[in-house]
Amino acid sequence: MATAGRSGIGTNQEDVRRHNLGTVLGHVHRAGRLSRAELTARMGLNRSTIAGLVTELESLGLAEQAKPSGARIGAGRPSVDVKARTGAYVLAVDLRVDGLTVARVGLGGVVQARATGPVPAGHDPETIASSVVELMRLVVKDVEPGSALVGVGVGVPGIIRAEDGLVRLAPNLGWRDVPFAKILAERIGTFAVPVLGNDADLGALAEHLRGAGVGVEDLVYLSGEVGVGAGVIVSGHKLEGAGGYAGEIGHMPYVPQGKLCHCGARGCWETEIGASAIALAIGCPAERVGALGEYLEAVHEAPEDLRLVGRHLGRGLAGMVNMLNPRVIVLGGYLRSLFPLVHDDVESELAVHALIAPRELVRVTLPGLSGDSVLHGAAELAFEPLLADPVGRLAEACLDVDAALAV
Amino acid sequence: MATAGRSGIGTNQEDVRRHNLGTVLGHVHRAGRLSRAELTARMGLNRSTIAGLVTELESLGLAEQAKPSGARIGAGRPSVDVKARTGAYVLAVDLRVDGLTVARVGLGGVVQARATGPVPAGHDPETIASSVVELMRLVVKDVEPGSALVGVGVGVPGIIRAEDGLVRLAPNLGWRDVPFAKILAERIGTFAVPVLGNDADLGALAEHLRGAGVGVEDLVYLSGEVGVGAGVIVSGHKLEGAGGYAGEIGHMPYVPQGKLCHCGARGCWETEIGASAIALAIGCPAERVGALGEYLEAVHEAPEDLRLVGRHLGRGLAGMVNMLNPRVIVLGGYLRSLFPLVHDDVESELAVHALIAPRELVRVTLPGLSGDSVLHGAAELAFEPLLADPVGRLAEACLDVDAALAV
Ligand SMILES: [Zn+2]
Ligand SMILES: [Zn+2]
Repeated sequence: MATAGRSGIGTNQEDVRRHNLGTVLGHVHRAGRLSRAELTARMGLNRSTIAGLVTELESLGLAEQAKPSGARIGAGRPSVDVKARTGAYVLAVDLRVDGLTVARVGLGGVVQARATGPVPAGHDPETIASSVVELMRLVVKDVEPGSALVGVGVGVPGIIRAEDGLVRLAPNLGWRDVPFAKILAERIGTFAVPVLGNDADLGALAEHLRGAGVGVEDLVYLSGEVGVGAGVIVSGHKLEGAGGYAGEIGHMPYVPQGKLCHCGARGCWETEIGASAIALAIGCPAERVGALGEYLEAVHEAPEDLRLVGRHLGRGLAGMVNMLNPRVIVLGGYLRSLFPLVHDDVESELAVHALIAPRELVRVTLPGLSGDSVLHGAAELAFEPLLADPVGRLAEACLDVDAALAV
Repeated sequence: MATAGRSGIGTNQEDVRRHNLGTVLGHVHRAGRLSRAELTARMGLNRSTIAGLVTELESLGLAEQAKPSGARIGAGRPSVDVKARTGAYVLAVDLRVDGLTVARVGLGGVVQARATGPVPAGHDPETIASSVVELMRLVVKDVEPGSALVGVGVGVPGIIRAEDGLVRLAPNLGWRDVPFAKILAERIGTFAVPVLGNDADLGALAEHLRGAGVGVEDLVYLSGEVGVGAGVIVSGHKLEGAGGYAGEIGHMPYVPQGKLCHCGARGCWETEIGASAIALAIGCPAERVGALGEYLEAVHEAPEDLRLVGRHLGRGLAGMVNMLNPRVIVLGGYLRSLFPLVHDDVESELAVHALIAPRELVRVTLPGLSGDSVLHGAAELAFEPLLADPVGRLAEACLDVDAALAV
């Protein structure tokens, strides 16, 4: 996403080469497999330079060349395909208020193994970090010998300070200024400092790179969990804000003197469309919110209370359309199950409250990565250092993850 | 703003030179006056190249060199100052629902002459265009012979399609799909096609370049007129959205089943903080809203109804803080007069509804350009083609504006 376009270009030849090597790897990683001719076209470099870079990636074990898979288009020599090799991988964590998912994701974005578990009651950061590490041990059990762990990425439903992974505020976990990156790092050895990202930001990143928003420059990913947040991409770049805190759309003032929100204010949007509101509308007991997805799957016709949630969703989306004028809005989390049930209610409120000009341009849709948007986003975050400097990152990679996790 | 950073660099030497010439002119234009040493530092080019570019600007009549004005800093030869020459100018128009302002603005951002008038009742686009042209005639009366009109910029309180200046929607003017750029162009000859911009976007641009947001990368300018809009700058670039329509924050759903808005929906934020709401709160008659600024100046202690408007302002600003995490929010239009009267009410609601992390970073402030933010923004918009290609634009400039406006 933003990274490649904005990163500086080195001032000497070796820097330029390292930068180009990472850019080639990025193309291969995102496409999984593409032809050398396509790479040449995308990079704007000549064929022999590309061939040299691909050979270097091969020797690093990050790519391999293969006969083209598809039909040949046009005349001339058939180009050679370049494939991502999955020997470099990351560990991706999707930490939700009501569940934990950990995956091993290979270069090219392939989920090689996954494990899920409950979030320990009370949301104690130390206990959660221990659970994360246990799930990590499960997903690395059958890792191919010689594979290199190149990063750890974690999606968290809260406001994250990017530079050190401090969780400034995660209202629905009850966290304030929790150094979760540090807490997790202490448990997994020194091989890879975990990188934290806001869950909605990561969902947006993944849907932009691999999901419903490929090729879309203006996109909003809405993470509908216990809390509601937005990851926003404008003109192809992540909307950061002055401190990286942008996108807290769940806490938009929505109903004057409305219901009390976990953030301390009244009437935030998420009090009307968050998991608790959905649960209440369909009779899912509060203590069963972790299974809300299953409850929603069992609903075939939306009761009036749920349709009201749908109208609140549509009215709030209209505000986002008016404010941000996105091309695509991706509904993630529980909103994935909710949307098909209340589609007409959402659309009718959107029609009333969104201005025509931006409304004509927007498409509200389900994620292209189904329930894995945040997980894939966490993986992309973890891959970033490798794509910025393949040689440098590989030199620091962990080749014996079992030992590292045994700490 | 966005222009310089994102524009392409030419592929041959002449393109590069033209680009650099425009960039030098842009620095001189924004600073008004700066030293050649400073220019050299900002451009990252060597001294002789800068000297050559400045000489070319001199020969074009766009800059002049002068002895340094300030105290010398450090040792070495004193640098020569470069000043913008005001022989190149634009006509800037601030079209509001309740008033018209036209100014002649010279290179360097100096308002050389201004005229104001009422907006014809009924808001007929043809009649308004005629009024604009009459005000233009006033401000060009004493223009220096040989001066070159290089552009016309117009701020409009509505949604503008950038490529052709079609006003998609200006609810408070009652306009829908009005080709105002074309209508105005027919009246002012063919010398300069007027460029239209959304009023709030132009306010943001001007405050970013010359006002309260100089050096600030994340800024919101709120135009509080009959309607309320936001111009948003994120990471130094204008927030455009998919169709250039972003920033319609006045139409954020704010009160469920609230007051009817000109856009057709109910409960938009501007129904609570727009000019009509302010007028009602202080007993300004509806037909005198054009003089609302004067009414507000006469208020010394805010009545309870006005304090309520202040709380609505603060609560809505909190939503912007949570959503966009800006560093600075500039309150323009009538909000300039309102804010000092209800400062504590705004701040207290902000404290309740904005999340701590983004709230710690934001400053809510009055415009640095007082009431002229939009006017200056319209001028900057009109100067853009000159700054992109000084030689090319001057070749098309109008040297006999009287004749052009006599059409
Ligand atoms: Zn809240
Ligand atoms: Zn409205």
